[in-house]
Amino acid sequence: MSIDNAVKENNAESLLSDIAITAELADYSPVKGCMVIRPYGYAIWENIQRILDKMIKDTGHENAYFPLLVPESFLQKEAEHVEGFAPECAVVTHAGGKELSERYVIRPTSETIINHMFSKWINSYRKLNQWANVMRWEMRTRLFLRTSEFLWQEGHTCHATHEESKEEVIKMIHVYEDLLHNYLALPIHIGEKTESERFAGAVSTFSIEALMRDGKALQAGTSHDLGQNFAKAFDTTFTDSENKLVHVWQTSWGVSTRLIGAVIMGHHDEVGLILPPKIAPYQVVIIPILKKNLDNTKVLNQAKLFHKELTDLGLRVKLDDREQISQGIKFNEYEQKGVPLRLVIGERDLENGCVELHRRDIRSKEKDIQIAGLIERIVRLLDEIQSGLFTRALEYRKENTKIVKNIAELDSVLDSKSLGFARAMWNGDVELERILKEKFSASIRCMPLRPELPSDHPCIISGTVSPQNREILIAKAY
Amino acid sequence: MSIDNAVKENNAESLLSDIAITAELADYSPVKGCMVIRPYGYAIWENIQRILDKMIKDTGHENAYFPLLVPESFLQKEAEHVEGFAPECAVVTHAGGKELSERYVIRPTSETIINHMFSKWINSYRKLNQWANVMRWEMRTRLFLRTSEFLWQEGHTCHATHEESKEEVIKMIHVYEDLLHNYLALPIHIGEKTESERFAGAVSTFSIEALMRDGKALQAGTSHDLGQNFAKAFDTTFTDSENKLVHVWQTSWGVSTRLIGAVIMGHHDEVGLILPPKIAPYQVVIIPILKKNLDNTKVLNQAKLFHKELTDLGLRVKLDDREQISQGIKFNEYEQKGVPLRLVIGERDLENGCVELHRRDIRSKEKDIQIAGLIERIVRLLDEIQSGLFTRALEYRKENTKIVKNIAELDSVLDSKSLGFARAMWNGDVELERILKEKFSASIRCMPLRPELPSDHPCIISGTVSPQNREILIAKAY
Repeated sequence: MSIDNAVKENNAESLLSDIAITAELADYSPVKGCMVIRPYGYAIWENIQRILDKMIKDTGHENAYFPLLVPESFLQKEAEHVEGFAPECAVVTHAGGKELSERYVIRPTSETIINHMFSKWINSYRKLNQWANVMRWEMRTRLFLRTSEFLWQEGHTCHATHEESKEEVIKMIHVYEDLLHNYLALPIHIGEKTESERFAGAVSTFSIEALMRDGKALQAGTSHDLGQNFAKAFDTTFTDSENKLVHVWQTSWGVSTRLIGAVIMGHHDEVGLILPPKIAPYQVVIIPILKKNLDNTKVLNQAKLFHKELTDLGLRVKLDDREQISQGIKFNEYEQKGVPLRLVIGERDLENGCVELHRRDIRSKEKDIQIAGLIERIVRLLDEIQSGLFTRALEYRKENTKIVKNIAELDSVLDSKSLGFARAMWNGDVELERILKEKFSASIRCMPLRPELPSDHPCIISGTVSPQNREILIAKAY
Repeated sequence: MSIDNAVKENNAESLLSDIAITAELADYSPVKGCMVIRPYGYAIWENIQRILDKMIKDTGHENAYFPLLVPESFLQKEAEHVEGFAPECAVVTHAGGKELSERYVIRPTSETIINHMFSKWINSYRKLNQWANVMRWEMRTRLFLRTSEFLWQEGHTCHATHEESKEEVIKMIHVYEDLLHNYLALPIHIGEKTESERFAGAVSTFSIEALMRDGKALQAGTSHDLGQNFAKAFDTTFTDSENKLVHVWQTSWGVSTRLIGAVIMGHHDEVGLILPPKIAPYQVVIIPILKKNLDNTKVLNQAKLFHKELTDLGLRVKLDDREQISQGIKFNEYEQKGVPLRLVIGERDLENGCVELHRRDIRSKEKDIQIAGLIERIVRLLDEIQSGLFTRALEYRKENTKIVKNIAELDSVLDSKSLGFARAMWNGDVELERILKEKFSASIRCMPLRPELPSDHPCIISGTVSPQNREILIAKAY
């Protein structure tokens, strides 16, 4: 299906793979549910990694690396954890030509093995992070959004008190908010998950929830209050001020290559991918108009000069001077790849001291741009594109968020073509989650950290007003 | 065993783990043969990655990511490859709660799965690299030098002709030489492996061989000419200038976390680790001398000022102002951790406008260093330490390289305590490899790219002189 048609039909399934394949972000692999991340997609991941890694270190965490394999017996030490993850695990039963006496699982997440090490390292390494691959055997997979193997970072911390660990959980979910808002240009809601949606083994889970352009919500990152659950299972202790060994309070938090899926589905148009400049592998593509069998020296030299000037400013720039490819094909290729700015240099324009600039986000084409001041203009335009994408996504979310008082009102929101968030009050009755799932294929995405409804807004399911009611965001989700 | 004793007894086994554990580089894990890389060790890896990643990109390669799991059937497509790697593979037989219809191995290396993708991507992605974890189930493991799971980069390229691919093999082994010489301060020999030591599936393998301080050689990186072996097995083709589909010529090349083992065993002394400044997590540690129950403001302020000045220059600096730890313990800790420079600030010195500097490499202690000009002095000293370590290692290698004419001479070299390299001529008779293995537990490390012996030097095994003879380097190895 073409991207254009997929947009028109709101066929998210087709759209995601069409954009990802056309933009050469990823490809299907011969391993069930696993993808290949192609260079253009991996370059986005490297940009996200570089930005987030600095944030994680700036908040006092150190990187380390723990084994890929986890003894199967470790999973079983935390009852809810094994229940949640065992069905998704890939299991290594043979190695070195022999059947193993102890089976290993490929890490679906590393709480257990890290706690085993934490328990040896009493009073040191309180705040660790690891960049790694993990595996969760999924039945139904989609490029970037749900693959059996994915790349992520997982932070794991230990604290002396529950207050401290709860503070860390909130601090790190705000780090993710910073990443999504200021780099991926995706507005998110921070909120607490309901009990049924918690991480297996956590006391409480917070998530960031973004709205995709098809009106579905996407959980883009999580931060867990683990309480003392894993600490008790692995006897991870520290010496408190009274010289007693007590169990630590822990957190874990992660984001993954799913973020690339969030960017794809959060910013595309009917042509394809649109990348925020801060994470785009190339922020500017320079295309000199080359004429066959003619001397293109002037145009090429000017293109190289711009390339150097922009690169010297620290921008990421691609100069496409391939002769055998027509400019039309090039234009099309970089639009589908979502390159924020296209700078086109033709000989006639050059004689007039002009070039042509094309903005990918609004698909504007400005001819006759003066070369004088061009570099500053490009820098400014990239900022405008970055903030413009965020504003557009925020507007879209506003338009697609409805306040509802009862299930009947929900009907009109979740059945509408645009979908989006429904904001409501809830008394905590899990019956709502059953109704949402069965009737609407929807769920409570989170109980937002920053509530907006008045306190006298009635519960969506009971109709009552109570100080115990909590605000919720409902949506269909990936 | 203490590091001191291990050095005296030349007990490399104990030495490596003593240094790695004491310096907090790594720890043993509950997974057989796998280690945990602790933050201080991982920070070294991050520095190596940052340096090498730039070199790899600067030579025209792009990063990508391929699945961790490889269908077992893929390994079998290249006969020598499966023979070499199958016995070392960890096998996934179950996933998602079921037995799999197709078994997967955890990648021991990725030639097969990457070729499967290459064969789909005709005429694109000719030069790829991937940073990843790999697994080879080893019987006898050692921290960093031989672990069942390790981290590495693996480059994979396709070329139109054998000349081009051979050029790439040599280009990349020189990139590794640059990394080892100019960053890890470890002199290496580049050379071709003998047939028996080739990568399984390669036409030819080049390696870099470093000499450790216990006189053993370490293979620190490899670059393989794969010929068309994998291209034929996976039908990886391209359209040549005559518009015919022909098989590509391929290379692969990699270095791993083993490099950290090379640094440990290539630069230590009887106190422990010595790190080259260019890859040290901290290049300078600043230790203010704090007095209990007294006002330490002046000393602390000066320490913070130095920290800022050095950090602003782009240096990696740690300020250790912990009050409850004595300076003696701190001095010891950073010596064991191999921090290149220690800057000590005491109140009395400060009144005289002086500080104390300690060089880890030669364990010099200079008191009464004037604060005026200190920053420039530190920058210069770090350069001196970096080049000094390389020079020292090169001297050591010279002293421990002997030219031999026959097996009897070899006897005295390989039985001597210092071991080292023996340089000889060889007619290619594999009998030599058998003798080396059985009699000396040694091997031909490589046939060096830059030979040094005169052409009339006789073959070590036949005693004959022939233009067909090739120069070789013999050593005991890790």
